[in-house]
Amino acid sequence: MTLLAPHHDGSPLYVSNSAPALGELVRVRLRVPEGYGPLAAVRTRSNPDHEPEWTDASSLGAVDGWEWWEAAVRVGNPRHGYRWLLVHEDGRVEWLNQTGLHTIETLDAEDFALVAAPPAPEWLHDAVMYQVFPDRFARSDQADLHPTPDWAIPAEWDDPVDHVAPGRSQQFYGGDLPGVIEKLDHLTGLGVNLLYFTPVFPAESNHRYNASSFDRVDPLLGGDAALVELVEKAHGRGIRVIGDLTSNHSGDGHEWFRSAHRNPGAPEQEYYYFLDADNEQYVSWLGYASLPKFDWASEALRRRFIDGPDSIVAKWLTPPYSLDGWRVDVANMTGRHGDVDLNAEVRQLLRRTVLSTNPDAIVLGESTNDAASDLQGDGWHGAMTYPSFTRPLWAWLSEPTFEPYLDAEGRVHTAPWFFGQPVGGIPRYTARDFFETVTRFSATIPWRVRLGNMLALDSHDTARFATNAAPGVAPVAAGLSMTLPGVPVVFAGDEFGLTGVDGESSRTPIPWGRAGEPAIAERMDLYRDLIALRRSHPVLGAGGLRWLHVDDDVIVFVRESADESVLVIASRTDVDVELAPGLVPSVGEAEALFGDATFATAADGAVAITADGPVFAAWSLPGVRVPDASASTLSGAVAGPATDDGAHTVAAEAVVAPEAQPAPEGE
Amino acid sequence: MTLLAPHHDGSPLYVSNSAPALGELVRVRLRVPEGYGPLAAVRTRSNPDHEPEWTDASSLGAVDGWEWWEAAVRVGNPRHGYRWLLVHEDGRVEWLNQTGLHTIETLDAEDFALVAAPPAPEWLHDAVMYQVFPDRFARSDQADLHPTPDWAIPAEWDDPVDHVAPGRSQQFYGGDLPGVIEKLDHLTGLGVNLLYFTPVFPAESNHRYNASSFDRVDPLLGGDAALVELVEKAHGRGIRVIGDLTSNHSGDGHEWFRSAHRNPGAPEQEYYYFLDADNEQYVSWLGYASLPKFDWASEALRRRFIDGPDSIVAKWLTPPYSLDGWRVDVANMTGRHGDVDLNAEVRQLLRRTVLSTNPDAIVLGESTNDAASDLQGDGWHGAMTYPSFTRPLWAWLSEPTFEPYLDAEGRVHTAPWFFGQPVGGIPRYTARDFFETVTRFSATIPWRVRLGNMLALDSHDTARFATNAAPGVAPVAAGLSMTLPGVPVVFAGDEFGLTGVDGESSRTPIPWGRAGEPAIAERMDLYRDLIALRRSHPVLGAGGLRWLHVDDDVIVFVRESADESVLVIASRTDVDVELAPGLVPSVGEAEALFGDATFATAADGAVAITADGPVFAAWSLPGVRVPDASASTLSGAVAGPATDDGAHTVAAEAVVAPEAQPAPEGE
Repeated sequence: MTLLAPHHDGSPLYVSNSAPALGELVRVRLRVPEGYGPLAAVRTRSNPDHEPEWTDASSLGAVDGWEWWEAAVRVGNPRHGYRWLLVHEDGRVEWLNQTGLHTIETLDAEDFALVAAPPAPEWLHDAVMYQVFPDRFARSDQADLHPTPDWAIPAEWDDPVDHVAPGRSQQFYGGDLPGVIEKLDHLTGLGVNLLYFTPVFPAESNHRYNASSFDRVDPLLGGDAALVELVEKAHGRGIRVIGDLTSNHSGDGHEWFRSAHRNPGAPEQEYYYFLDADNEQYVSWLGYASLPKFDWASEALRRRFIDGPDSIVAKWLTPPYSLDGWRVDVANMTGRHGDVDLNAEVRQLLRRTVLSTNPDAIVLGESTNDAASDLQGDGWHGAMTYPSFTRPLWAWLSEPTFEPYLDAEGRVHTAPWFFGQPVGGIPRYTARDFFETVTRFSATIPWRVRLGNMLALDSHDTARFATNAAPGVAPVAAGLSMTLPGVPVVFAGDEFGLTGVDGESSRTPIPWGRAGEPAIAERMDLYRDLIALRRSHPVLGAGGLRWLHVDDDVIVFVRESADESVLVIASRTDVDVELAPGLVPSVGEAEALFGDATFATAADGAVAITADGPVFAAWSLPGVRVPDASASTLSGAVAGPATDDGAHTVAAEAVVAPEAQPAPEGE
Repeated sequence: MTLLAPHHDGSPLYVSNSAPALGELVRVRLRVPEGYGPLAAVRTRSNPDHEPEWTDASSLGAVDGWEWWEAAVRVGNPRHGYRWLLVHEDGRVEWLNQTGLHTIETLDAEDFALVAAPPAPEWLHDAVMYQVFPDRFARSDQADLHPTPDWAIPAEWDDPVDHVAPGRSQQFYGGDLPGVIEKLDHLTGLGVNLLYFTPVFPAESNHRYNASSFDRVDPLLGGDAALVELVEKAHGRGIRVIGDLTSNHSGDGHEWFRSAHRNPGAPEQEYYYFLDADNEQYVSWLGYASLPKFDWASEALRRRFIDGPDSIVAKWLTPPYSLDGWRVDVANMTGRHGDVDLNAEVRQLLRRTVLSTNPDAIVLGESTNDAASDLQGDGWHGAMTYPSFTRPLWAWLSEPTFEPYLDAEGRVHTAPWFFGQPVGGIPRYTARDFFETVTRFSATIPWRVRLGNMLALDSHDTARFATNAAPGVAPVAAGLSMTLPGVPVVFAGDEFGLTGVDGESSRTPIPWGRAGEPAIAERMDLYRDLIALRRSHPVLGAGGLRWLHVDDDVIVFVRESADESVLVIASRTDVDVELAPGLVPSVGEAEALFGDATFATAADGAVAITADGPVFAAWSLPGVRVPDASASTLSGAVAGPATDDGAHTVAAEAVVAPEAQPAPEGE
């Protein structure tokens, strides 16, 4: 399908203010292909306080084959949903929301949405994240000074990873923060500018998610001093650093837990869900006794951990540590337990502390499945989440691995898991399935928050993408992570082409000695080039997203701003696609940025793209023009008094004429 | 399309307990057409505390062409979502949720859902509701005893309704409760068994939504004594009675408001949102000064109005008044104002009071658009809502009314509203659009709550359906309201075939004197017959819903239980539909219940349905058989200990083998 259709998204071409105050007027714009109508009316439908409100849009005129419409929307609630209504002169009605065009009515949850809360810092949109699992990244000479702890099973750097207990969490390679410092040239060379560490607090495991304290950096990693030095040196190179916080649970070796366990009356007993008078039994993460779950009803826990300048959350964002934010582990379960749901309170409080400590810091929540319920802009700036990018990407670009087997009775079984899902292996998606899945799981999240979502091919919790990747798709996968809306993530080792069949096996020590091998060097060049592509074209960070073509094998989209557009094609097979005239204005001026594909413009404006697949290619195009050249982006809110009576009235020139409205029942 | 596909819904055929306790095991069943697979595995996916959990289903064997699978699900949260996963032996994966089958992953919000809260009383599923707008229903001789109040513009019973202010809310016909008592024979004759009154509290308007007190019945309606007599007599005929409560606002003549307005320091000032120190300005419903909005942050307001045995809510459910519940006006906006959202607290508290006062009472919330956010089972038993039935029904079965007009400049305008939406008139839906809209707006609501949603053709807030109905569709529209899941509603006058172009005009006085006119008598017979159909087949109340066929003109579905099934066909045009063999088991035994259509079964089990349209027809079929004859419905929960540690573990025999699961990161 070729998608010559009305378009709106949350980017600056279409929204005058992505971080409005409550009560503020925001101008929103819709572009419609010329000849699409004729349209009798274009309107917005908002839903302040859960009651519909309508504004008429005015035409701004047409340019480059598109007619532009503008309406004013008064922000009524912290998450202000809105959709577009197109009334055709022939009576047809269409609705446009974040899932696309509809001829039937649409759900509130899939509305476009404005968020009246402080936005993520601008730098997040320019970030390319690099994830480091400290035990496996690099081991400095200083590591030899520490005796191996009792719980650990020492491993040499090139030993294979043991993914079976007890080695799974006890195999200890001894990577440390001074080791990371020694490798900063590698990061600078790649071009990444945001370093995300899985936990660095002390814990009796290699992954350190079972923290025994949040008060200090694990001495095995070099202690507080190493973190201070690392952050300072990273900052010196323009690289920001975020940590990893376990808000759902601590380890059973945590000082708080040890104080309270089997010790009724301890001040910390209210931090956990103890189940008996002896503080013997307790609730834990998925029933694992080593991970006692926090009870966020405790005000004392809140103060100590997440609330205010003396909290753990604040401490590490403050000099001399100066972290630039947090990734929050198991954010999806945090504060949730049976009939208790304190998740919103925790994420809001945690963010408040982060922002009051360092307004330039970020906070990302782990929510590995449908993240929409927790991602409406009140808490996390974005999520580490897989259904909106990572899983559909795998399903499209992997080799089929489904291999059912027969048991002794001849019964068919499907063993393999896929990202924790017992679906029999990696599902087989078409490019169209990829598109539809990305759309489905992004449509319930405000655009602004979507831009903060992590676009990872894999992580310390998943198998490595390269393990099952179809031949030749590495540029396609990495290219999409760099060009779709969100924060690209390189999990350390991706650039070495590492493989691993599960989350444990993917925690491979980085094979620094093999960096010169041709295959690895080639993969590293690929990452370097793609990261450079991302970072040198800001439109890939905050620009709009318009899908141009989707079929079973190929997707084509464009990221757009007033300054520049970048057109992207991704395919698992050979490509021979024609884009209809008008779909991409000004294509005659395309400049190839990446990939080996042919881009030809016909006299009528149609664009033919051909390539041998798999292929990832990108072109730079001129920015998008809107009819009013003096306002090619919508900047700043429309002047207008904020509602001072709290009622959701809209400026008279914008609101649908009241006399045309049905009389309210109560008047 | 013909829909021979795996099926599950929330009805007793598929769910062992629709009102489980938290922690309880519920058995759920899936039926799959024989030959649909072969399937390597069938599983459920739940999401307790927002983290996926899986159970394997076991096959119960096959009967009547369907294989049945059963799994156990532990209820982890008050709303416990779950979906089905089908893994085919050839590697294909399908997900089944409330929107249907998917080959890509699905959203949490569209999961099937169990609700761990007290259920609606059983009688709600057998209810056929009749809505009365008191000023317009019937006027007794007693009404002459009351002087016409100052605000009122008296009208004779057969005067036309004035839908322009001031007549709109001041035109006064003087219908009263003794008038309703005189007409109870009419209700008994129709067969309705639930009477819903729009407000009966005193107010200076004909609609009484601007209450001046909640403490007494308007003397103009006959006062408290009339209500007591009415409820007693209705109960004597097996008719329950519910009232209408304005939880979002009162009138500006309300005794609470008058006490506080311009009277700083009055105890009631915290009941409202006053905006200045003089209590002069205040927040009101959509800016109408006559309807000051309640501030539900006030504990005093809560106690006085909705909380506990001394509240307004409780008083009217208690003898001698003995109402059977409430419809709550503007429930969607209640407690919502800018960055404040107390809606959940209000609806939960209100329901708690209702149930502790009278566990057999119901509480329905008005939410005229997408109601899902407030309808997850924690508050309202159901909703007065339009997008999931009423609006798509109109759009399918009305005459097109779209008539754009040109203004002096030749610009096209679309004036007409449709249920408060400026969409240019009544949209034009196909039968398929109707099906898709019903599905879309029902899929985000737990089955149990969906059964409490009101299925109205119109109401006091809308135009009358008959005004724009296509010729001959009255049986189709009314028939669907009686046979789809939900509570059928007859708005008084529907059975007279009344028309009205907007909500005001539809408040027509009932033309009792014309009841004998042939067209009206025929319409009344239609309602009598359809209500009898509904009430004599309990499967239409609580049975499952399976769609069998949908095309642009025709829908066919079946409501199913172990005792009986009812197959329904609805079409705006002539019908010539063939249902594939296996779609409906045991069709040879079909007994015609309603409508003029031919139902023929071929030797191979295919069913041919032919009829002249428009047509609504229904047949009774044998109940659904499941392989284990001893358990043809799932009754009672599986024996098994509730989780006492609060962790979401599932009985070992049901849960997917832990050793097959990926290792948790923290273990």
